[in-house]
Amino acid sequence: FLKTSASVQILGCDFSGGQGKAGVDQGPSQLIQAGLQKQIAQLGWNVGYEGNERYERIVQEFAGKDADIGQMKNPRTVNAVARSVADRVEAISKAGDLPLTLGGDHSLGLGTVTGTLRSHPSAGVIWVDAHADINTPLTTDSGNLHGCPVSFLMGLEGCDVAPFNEWVQPLLKPEGIVYIGLRDIDVEERKILKENNIKCFSMHHVDKYGIGRVVDMALDHLNGNSGRRDRPIHLSFDVDGLDPSVAPSTGTPVRGGLTFREGHYICETLHETGCLVAVDIMEVNPSLMEQRDAEATVAVGCSLARSALGETLL
Amino acid sequence: FLKTSASVQILGCDFSGGQGKAGVDQGPSQLIQAGLQKQIAQLGWNVGYEGNERYERIVQEFAGKDADIGQMKNPRTVNAVARSVADRVEAISKAGDLPLTLGGDHSLGLGTVTGTLRSHPSAGVIWVDAHADINTPLTTDSGNLHGCPVSFLMGLEGCDVAPFNEWVQPLLKPEGIVYIGLRDIDVEERKILKENNIKCFSMHHVDKYGIGRVVDMALDHLNGNSGRRDRPIHLSFDVDGLDPSVAPSTGTPVRGGLTFREGHYICETLHETGCLVAVDIMEVNPSLMEQRDAEATVAVGCSLARSALGETLL
Amino acid sequence: FLKTSASVQILGCDFSGGQGKAGVDQGPSQLIQAGLQKQIAQLGWNVGYEGNERYERIVQEFAGKDADIGQMKNPRTVNAVARSVADRVEAISKAGDLPLTLGGDHSLGLGTVTGTLRSHPSAGVIWVDAHADINTPLTTDSGNLHGCPVSFLMGLEGCDVAPFNEWVQPLLKPEGIVYIGLRDIDVEERKILKENNIKCFSMHHVDKYGIGRVVDMALDHLNGNSGRRDRPIHLSFDVDGLDPSVAPSTGTPVRGGLTFREGHYICETLHETGCLVAVDIMEVNPSLMEQRDAEATVAVGCSLARSALGETLL
Ligand SMILES: [Mn+2]
Ligand SMILES: [Mn+2]
Ligand SMILES: [Mn+2]
Ligand SMILES: [Mn+2]
Ligand SMILES: [Mn+2]
Ligand SMILES: [Mn+2]
Repeated sequence: FLKTSASVQILGCDFSGGQGKAGVDQGPSQLIQAGLQKQIAQLGWNVGYEGNERYERIVQEFAGKDADIGQMKNPRTVNAVARSVADRVEAISKAGDLPLTLGGDHSLGLGTVTGTLRSHPSAGVIWVDAHADINTPLTTDSGNLHGCPVSFLMGLEGCDVAPFNEWVQPLLKPEGIVYIGLRDIDVEERKILKENNIKCFSMHHVDKYGIGRVVDMALDHLNGNSGRRDRPIHLSFDVDGLDPSVAPSTGTPVRGGLTFREGHYICETLHETGCLVAVDIMEVNPSLMEQRDAEATVAVGCSLARSALGETLL
Repeated sequence: FLKTSASVQILGCDFSGGQGKAGVDQGPSQLIQAGLQKQIAQLGWNVGYEGNERYERIVQEFAGKDADIGQMKNPRTVNAVARSVADRVEAISKAGDLPLTLGGDHSLGLGTVTGTLRSHPSAGVIWVDAHADINTPLTTDSGNLHGCPVSFLMGLEGCDVAPFNEWVQPLLKPEGIVYIGLRDIDVEERKILKENNIKCFSMHHVDKYGIGRVVDMALDHLNGNSGRRDRPIHLSFDVDGLDPSVAPSTGTPVRGGLTFREGHYICETLHETGCLVAVDIMEVNPSLMEQRDAEATVAVGCSLARSALGETLL
Repeated sequence: FLKTSASVQILGCDFSGGQGKAGVDQGPSQLIQAGLQKQIAQLGWNVGYEGNERYERIVQEFAGKDADIGQMKNPRTVNAVARSVADRVEAISKAGDLPLTLGGDHSLGLGTVTGTLRSHPSAGVIWVDAHADINTPLTTDSGNLHGCPVSFLMGLEGCDVAPFNEWVQPLLKPEGIVYIGLRDIDVEERKILKENNIKCFSMHHVDKYGIGRVVDMALDHLNGNSGRRDRPIHLSFDVDGLDPSVAPSTGTPVRGGLTFREGHYICETLHETGCLVAVDIMEVNPSLMEQRDAEATVAVGCSLARSALGETLL
């Protein structure tokens, strides 16, 4: 799905408006400073990187003027940023390159997946996360939009709301996403997942089947149990899918997560399919913990990205 | 097996006489203070809790008068407490409710399992533990009775001894118990397990098969490999079955134990059977480690109980 | 393959010349001081131990006179030590006993495996390691010979070089070794592994299949997929195969390694085959970390050895 002489375009998104904790906007620059660009180049990719998106114009435009809409916090800012991300990812993807988006909070996923689906309408999504991020404006308690991107992508009830309805299309079908790593789901989200028959592998399933079979079943599901492996795949990896002992410096850690190896296994195996068309590394927040934990989280973010882009153990 | 409008009755047993380390009698109050009662209520159960059993009358009765009998330490106290627990668990169970017993040391298991088997004679036991707790008065080196409850439940040789023979019946057959998590077994215990053909899944088996298949095989065994899942089950969970990195604050920790997720997987899967009729959470000793480790152990005790009572990840 | 009244002969090799970090020569004495000899005796073995090899004569002979040969560092010293080890292991093995070699760095493996193959020409090797240790004098960047023993054992191109060619025979065929735990392989090593069709289970495969199936497949491979388990086996266990959280005090730790239980599972399962004829415990370096981590690493080295020699959980 990529050009023969494929490039990775790094899209660093210094954005934290989809949730309440400062610092996640520093994730991209920390990942870059840790050497991610060079590391990916050493894997044989051409790597484009033009500095991070600071969204200064957007932030200024809405400074002091972004009152809640219903429960939603920072709706205009999140909306404008996601829209910008969607356009960027679409453009990169249509040029035949692979967008690697560095977050920033997971509300950016509304932009990245939209961009991918505009370019590859048949693409499926693998969403690695402790959370389902499928609250709607009607169900969210916190109003933090990093908990809502998937519902907007699907156009669930309550998502046809300004300002998002100016541009968001329901490009993602319920059968087009698979979750891995879930372990902290709101009651209303549970209903949504069930009613829409969305494929979820919680940590219970990872325990039950082992990560090897889980990734296999995830790919089977996205490929219609055809036995083939030819559907383009967008990987959206929230580092809180990992156990807090592995990725402690993130906004909403939850015990009992993926091990270091399980996280990397997912990335390695998706790379092996040859079908990855976009990768997000989200929710690295280097300011939440002491330096040692922050550095470990940044390091694991980099190595997840490398694994998704072809670094292998053998 | 439970009433339609089922309730959980919490039986907090402030007892440490089955072993030598002070503090395990504070386990129940710490679990309660951490919010366990309310947490279970939020899962939709009616929760009964009348304060912990302090066994003051028993302790006073035998103060200074509980000399060793053979190797057994505190035999009269352990005996009287277990007898009391058996009556309480039996009454709760016969009322159609689920007894959730909080220890306290694992000698209490003599009481809890007896109570269950009086009410549900066909019940099977899943005993999660680093240890087999199947020494007899003839084989125990330490004389600590928390290492002996299973042998009394089975009426093994040497267990027909006062004061226990006043009330203990050999209600548990060797085919009626399955161990998970074993990794520290005495030589004599090994013989007993072998001679009685008792089903054991040590950590070696958890590594070999994965926890998913182990729990499946455990349930198969208890259900006579019938393919059905209809035998009532008593879960007796010694937190030292978990790895010390997960549950550090317990009296006899052993390296190489169940992970956080493996422990919860067991509880979740037993709940799913719909056959759980009793749950024990044992050997939480909050005074052995620094506060952080003690709190982690209490927290994991609570979450194991919640998982056994229906908390799911999805 | 062992005598009926078999003995373990402990060969403690206080040697660090195959790499650059001081302290790994203290591994053997720390393992002994931790009680390893007695622990093995308690498993029912006759245990011979005559004090460690200090290689004083060899070290003195080459002091100041062991210039690099090509890239190779300390070539004459490493050569003389490995030659001595080979003779010792051969003699122990031919006497029908089991040599348990304690390192020291993994360049000693050139000696131990040579000794085993002189005595049991059909023996296969299971090499547990984060690294493949299969650089040649032509491919090694660092020149550290603990990264090269396997290539000498196979007589790969570039290994027919003085002083090693005075005694080293290519006794090991590519089909005669299986790796478990690999996760840090040099580019040239990768080529060698591929060209020679050497069976490798990286951590990716451990994730994919689980350690139970991996060990099974390793044994299948060494036994020609015959279904039998009758090929003699030499286990060479580099403790850096374990995760650094389990064995931190080692010279070249790599994240994402075998868990405590996975490491022990390998040893336990190889013991169960009844085919183990030699065991190496390598790269314990007690001086690299703080005391607590060093002690944990020494303790795990001892318990790996015990598991390989028959300690079981049940
Ligand atoms: Mn997320
Ligand atoms: Mn999340
Ligand atoms: Mn116990
Ligand atoms: Mn125990
Ligand atoms: Mn190594
Ligand atoms: Mn090595």
